[in-house]
Amino acid sequence: MTYCCGILVRDGLVMIADTRTNAGLDNVSTFRKLHVYSEPGERIMAIASSGNLSLSQTVRSMLTEGIENPETGELETLMNAPTMFQAAQRIGKAVRLVQGIDGKALAEAAIDHDVAFLFGGQVKGGKLRLFMIYSAGNFIECTTDTPYLQIGEHKYGKPVLDRAISFDTDVYDALKIGLISMDSTMRSNLGVGLPIDLMVARRDELTAEVNYRIEPGEPYFQDLREQWSSALRAAHIAIPRPPYGNGR
Amino acid sequence: MTYCCGILVRDGLVMIADTRTNAGLDNVSTFRKLHVYSEPGERIMAIASSGNLSLSQTVRSMLTEGIENPETGELETLMNAPTMFQAAQRIGKAVRLVQGIDGKALAEAAIDHDVAFLFGGQVKGGKLRLFMIYSAGNFIECTTDTPYLQIGEHKYGKPVLDRAISFDTDVYDALKIGLISMDSTMRSNLGVGLPIDLMVARRDELTAEVNYRIEPGEPYFQDLREQWSSALRAAHIAIPRPPYGNGR
Repeated sequence: MTYCCGILVRDGLVMIADTRTNAGLDNVSTFRKLHVYSEPGERIMAIASSGNLSLSQTVRSMLTEGIENPETGELETLMNAPTMFQAAQRIGKAVRLVQGIDGKALAEAAIDHDVAFLFGGQVKGGKLRLFMIYSAGNFIECTTDTPYLQIGEHKYGKPVLDRAISFDTDVYDALKIGLISMDSTMRSNLGVGLPIDLMVARRDELTAEVNYRIEPGEPYFQDLREQWSSALRAAHIAIPRPPYGNGR
Repeated sequence: MTYCCGILVRDGLVMIADTRTNAGLDNVSTFRKLHVYSEPGERIMAIASSGNLSLSQTVRSMLTEGIENPETGELETLMNAPTMFQAAQRIGKAVRLVQGIDGKALAEAAIDHDVAFLFGGQVKGGKLRLFMIYSAGNFIECTTDTPYLQIGEHKYGKPVLDRAISFDTDVYDALKIGLISMDSTMRSNLGVGLPIDLMVARRDELTAEVNYRIEPGEPYFQDLREQWSSALRAAHIAIPRPPYGNGR
């Protein structure tokens, strides 16, 4: 399992991903799912993946080596994509190529071959953007109405995002809320776990302001988890008991 | 969609169910999913259902009319079940009968024929118990380690239950937390909605202390939703910003 979320606010972009992968409950490992591609001052891109690991890794490898454009002969990579939109299209194209080769074989073996990506960043001269690429290679873009996207085990961590995030949220508040969302997911799904990788990119700075891994026991995240737990406890204690029956 | 939860604490039992059903997004209706069977002083039972409505209604009708026991000739209902365990077995039996008839036809038409039940209560001389009956008619029982069970859209409302409910929680606090869990689910899934039906039965009282419907606009629930929202806002505002990068 996996949980990744991307949050795009006025100030910038946050991407967060856990690192737990499992092939069955008896085969759990740690794999990085958030990858940052950066050429400071020129472009900052981050890609987070969920689903079948062999497929997502192959997609990334193809986008690093480059996919030959039959018309121009050019090897198209993420790093030479002229815009974020074209980069997202390249991810979609790679997904379709991989699904056509490996996905087909996996389907025949009745193995899950879903894969999904969050892709965010900015290319010089363009806007800071965030996309979600689906298993069929199509994609959607994050807008100001709902300034976040999630892949993987998204339900447990969605309520806090729905309540707390708006486009005007400060980028580090967005990171904090994203980490609370990750905490809620980790508590309810053992398939999502530490370490957590995160990236923060401010709009128009074209570089990662933070590219960081939270390891188990890291003081800030441990504190956040404890404070959030006690705040929730306090919050429901503060609400009066229901006035029905003898509870009043 | 549906969300129901049952909570079994030392003091008693809480059952909560929404009422929204839908056949596609363009066909939304209100149907009661929580049904209370009571003979005060003798037995209190409540059943909540999720999944295919035609199947869950048929199961309940069979258990009201009675399923003939081929050995004794007795018409077995919920109301004449000698124990909660045997009543749960009767629900399982009815589920299997219905799956054998309607479920098969639905499967051939590629229509979802899942169904699930929460079944809680107490029969005089027995214990207060809570069961979850699956689509195949098998069932599990709630224990003190995790004193709640959920059916339907369970993920959004699970984190608050995991954090706040223990076997020693007061029964009206359990109701309150169950309503917060319902609120979280309603916010994230449009297929779950008001009115909400609820029942509270204290251990050994063999009657429903509360059997109530929360209609839209009901002041306590509206208050709970607003207080919980502002408490969550306050809670995440109180947590310091992450110390990574320039956020500190």
